[in-house]
Amino acid sequence: MRFVRFRAEGRVAYGRVEGEQVLPLAGDLFSGRAGDREPAGEARPLADVELLAPVRPGKIVCVGLNYQNHAREFGLAIPDEPLLFIKPPSAVIGPGAPIVLPAMSRRVDYEGELVAVIGRTLSRAAPAEAAAGILGFTCGNDVTARDLQKRDGQWTRAKSFDTFAPLGPWIVAGLDPADLEIATHVNGRRVQSDTTAGMIFPVPDLVAFISQVMTLEPGDAVFTGTPAGVGPLAPGDVVEVEIAGIGRLANPVRGAVR
Amino acid sequence: MRFVRFRAEGRVAYGRVEGEQVLPLAGDLFSGRAGDREPAGEARPLADVELLAPVRPGKIVCVGLNYQNHAREFGLAIPDEPLLFIKPPSAVIGPGAPIVLPAMSRRVDYEGELVAVIGRTLSRAAPAEAAAGILGFTCGNDVTARDLQKRDGQWTRAKSFDTFAPLGPWIVAGLDPADLEIATHVNGRRVQSDTTAGMIFPVPDLVAFISQVMTLEPGDAVFTGTPAGVGPLAPGDVVEVEIAGIGRLANPVRGAVR
Repeated sequence: MRFVRFRAEGRVAYGRVEGEQVLPLAGDLFSGRAGDREPAGEARPLADVELLAPVRPGKIVCVGLNYQNHAREFGLAIPDEPLLFIKPPSAVIGPGAPIVLPAMSRRVDYEGELVAVIGRTLSRAAPAEAAAGILGFTCGNDVTARDLQKRDGQWTRAKSFDTFAPLGPWIVAGLDPADLEIATHVNGRRVQSDTTAGMIFPVPDLVAFISQVMTLEPGDAVFTGTPAGVGPLAPGDVVEVEIAGIGRLANPVRGAVR
Repeated sequence: MRFVRFRAEGRVAYGRVEGEQVLPLAGDLFSGRAGDREPAGEARPLADVELLAPVRPGKIVCVGLNYQNHAREFGLAIPDEPLLFIKPPSAVIGPGAPIVLPAMSRRVDYEGELVAVIGRTLSRAAPAEAAAGILGFTCGNDVTARDLQKRDGQWTRAKSFDTFAPLGPWIVAGLDPADLEIATHVNGRRVQSDTTAGMIFPVPDLVAFISQVMTLEPGDAVFTGTPAGVGPLAPGDVVEVEIAGIGRLANPVRGAVR
């Protein structure tokens, strides 16, 4: 099952994708209210709607250094525990929306990631319960101002600029995240390529760990780390994150607004 | 003007405090909809309602090291720019609610802080515009697992446990934040005491800086840093953050849930 959020004729709605059609849902995908996930209204061709980020997360929790190859690339030891950080909801953009390079930074990198979207409240969950509490998965790009990340020590500013959390194109439910091919392309050139089997902390363990610290709520998003091969973006680039079983999240890159 | 969020007879509403009474508001303090801030319904005695955190922030942006004395206490240089971090909305509790010490940590500290609550969307604002976009101020406690903060390097886990962001008791509009006495008490003993005039980055500059990175939205909260004198909490303690012109935020402390 694929869920989207879309705009058509000025209205925003959640929808379910069936073939090349979108069936609008009656309400909020994350409300938990009976009936809200039922179709309501006429189907539209997928090609005719504007896809938005499939969720507006209450919070975005991310993990640094969760692929063996990416740890090697930076010459870092394999961590004992996930290293968490948070991106603000104001950074979210949808498929096709531009990543804007901030004037404050000289070096902004893509980081293609598998993103788990939470469907059920999770607090101090075991891995199996955590896995069952995930509504589905989407593609994400943990865009990072690498120079500011190094300068600040804390990663927050580097990861938090507006447009630094592209999400989409949809949420796929019923997908096993254990061994999915994940790749990032810049202007059609493959720059990251791995499988989620290379994760240091697999998705159920990672989500369970986060839920020991903070309650995860429906609509929260968990970025699960990036594989080796991170690199810079320049104005005019198009960056695409592609995950097997999900699809491709493409975003153009624009220069700084001053 | 003082704004509260409260529960009475099972219903949650925003309200305006007048003397010893609460006047419920028609709607959401942060909606921007005409009429939502108008009183609607009967006044109640303030003593008869349960005060909740006065805002459920969309995001909580915080600054490390923003008081001269606190920088000295840790033997650290005065920073050139604010060092930002984020706490998740799931950490918020209201006045009187317990701070729960997590089993993962052996050392949890209070950090009393002045908190600015955003009233208007702010993006790349100058300091004067930032100041005008603040709805008002409340007391906050940036509760921190000091051992995990040191171990992780990144501060996110240490700052993000459920109950680690007490806020309240109300939002005071029309307050000049430039020189307010701020103090923290543990079991009635004064442990932090300073004035906001000791800030390295005054509130308008700090909020303006954050808005260069990320768009601030109505209901977002900005924790403005803690003065010298941070220290540990133990089960059974009561911690109070008191700010002149606002009031006192008191929270009991409970042992770990295992």
